Amino acid sequence: MPREYRLKRRVQFHETDVAGIVHFSWFFRYMEEAEHALWRAAGLSIHPPGSDIGWPRVAASFEFHRALRFEDEFVVLLRVAEMTKKSIRYDCVLEKGDEKIATGTMTILCVRKHPTMQAIDIPGEIAARLQDALRVGDGP
Amino acid sequence: MPREYRLKRRVQFHETDVAGIVHFSWFFRYMEEAEHALWRAAGLSIHPPGSDIGWPRVAASFEFHRALRFEDEFVVLLRVAEMTKKSIRYDCVLEKGDEKIATGTMTILCVRKHPTMQAIDIPGEIAARLQDALRVGDGP
Amino acid sequence: MPREYRLKRRVQFHETDVAGIVHFSWFFRYMEEAEHALWRAAGLSIHPPGSDIGWPRVAASFEFHRALRFEDEFVVLLRVAEMTKKSIRYDCVLEKGDEKIATGTMTILCVRKHPTMQAIDIPGEIAARLQDALRVGDGP
Amino acid sequence: MPREYRLKRRVQFHETDVAGIVHFSWFFRYMEEAEHALWRAAGLSIHPPGSDIGWPRVAASFEFHRALRFEDEFVVLLRVAEMTKKSIRYDCVLEKGDEKIATGTMTILCVRKHPTMQAIDIPGEIAARLQDALRVGDGP
Repeated sequence: MPREYRLKRRVQFHETDVAGIVHFSWFFRYMEEAEHALWRAAGLSIHPPGSDIGWPRVAASFEFHRALRFEDEFVVLLRVAEMTKKSIRYDCVLEKGDEKIATGTMTILCVRKHPTMQAIDIPGEIAARLQDALRVGDGP
Repeated sequence: MPREYRLKRRVQFHETDVAGIVHFSWFFRYMEEAEHALWRAAGLSIHPPGSDIGWPRVAASFEFHRALRFEDEFVVLLRVAEMTKKSIRYDCVLEKGDEKIATGTMTILCVRKHPTMQAIDIPGEIAARLQDALRVGDGP
Repeated sequence: MPREYRLKRRVQFHETDVAGIVHFSWFFRYMEEAEHALWRAAGLSIHPPGSDIGWPRVAASFEFHRALRFEDEFVVLLRVAEMTKKSIRYDCVLEKGDEKIATGTMTILCVRKHPTMQAIDIPGEIAARLQDALRVGDGP
Repeated sequence: MPREYRLKRRVQFHETDVAGIVHFSWFFRYMEEAEHALWRAAGLSIHPPGSDIGWPRVAASFEFHRALRFEDEFVVLLRVAEMTKKSIRYDCVLEKGDEKIATGTMTILCVRKHPTMQAIDIPGEIAARLQDALRVGDGP
């Protein structure tokens, strides 16, 4: 798995709006789709059935440089920018060919859901699998 | 509560598509928003926290007569067309002023979720509250 | 291109709802995603930039047999069930492995957008390309 | 009109996800719904039919403090934080009762769409109407 996860995607009709472009709320969904694909590539699911661990988003942002339109093909490049004991911050770039479309970031927190929602340390195996994912391609 | 539940709604920007009109998938959400508002008007919630009863949709359809556009105000008229022991069928009309925009229908099933999902009889209190809602305004 | 267009798809997190399953409105979007992929496979776009021809949906329905859940992989099988002079009706089946998830149908109308929206005959080239698509695999 | 625009809203079923809470992408739509309601309150539309002026979003962010759940009632408080010659920056707070749910910001740019998209000065009448909106309630 590359240091930067790369999701190929095509704009769907229902993602556009009356201004003729992809509605900006969709960029956040594209970023999350890439995150979940990254986790799958690391042999994980961010929401396994029956798990008591959750990953709420605590912050998300985007800067929009260019528009995406119906049927455009683009890529979502996702990077784990920082992993603390309890949180992960992703950086994200959307590109269409050579054009930079948007740059985003998203921070998620590791929580135990019961008895009450509480931040916990990221489980060792998950951290290890994501660290492995990060290590690949780091060589000189 | 009237025999026909009436939800006032305005088209939001993110509900439109590049064709300049509301995406057809939204009509199904409008119909469901009216259903849940009807249940609230009957003193119920279709998804109370912790309940083991669920109401999966088993069928839904729409005929689209006219388009809705950004900022259009419209009403969703929802009627309980039929209630069997285990299911409810709604009829729905969307109107903008004097114009009929679309006509839809949706059938939901009453299920127990655990240990495995299984159709059950609609609980007496829920049937009664919805029957009451139906009875209002039926007089000569 | 096969007589039946086959779109592979995976359930995304944002397509699920608090009942733990894909929200029923998404099935209509899945059906439309398959339609647009079919058109691309036929060398067409259903919404080419600047075109005065549009394809509003005039009817759509689904029967829901089973639920889809986060990260489920499924296929959308789309067939042109009928083509009249001015309209196309699709049939659609969603399957997950051997399970039939849902069956749907959607009818679209060919319209000229200006000066006022009006139903027109499906352009010859579009009909031909879709007929070709239909003809494949029709052998004895 | 108050200095801070206040939109009351209720969580709809289709806005929730399998984690049992409102999907984070919806907060950006809530913020935009409040923006468009603010413009209507100022006698404006952000997307009048046939207008050559557009308002693309150039940045948007949220910090998420607490979750929203099905049928929760909340308010979106929107403020024009800064207006430059060509752009507007909004600040936004979502509250449920006394709880702060999330804080966001969004920057939009005034553009002319034809012949090519280009940033332009915010039209005098629009700036005036929004300035008026800001001025109300600023007195001692």
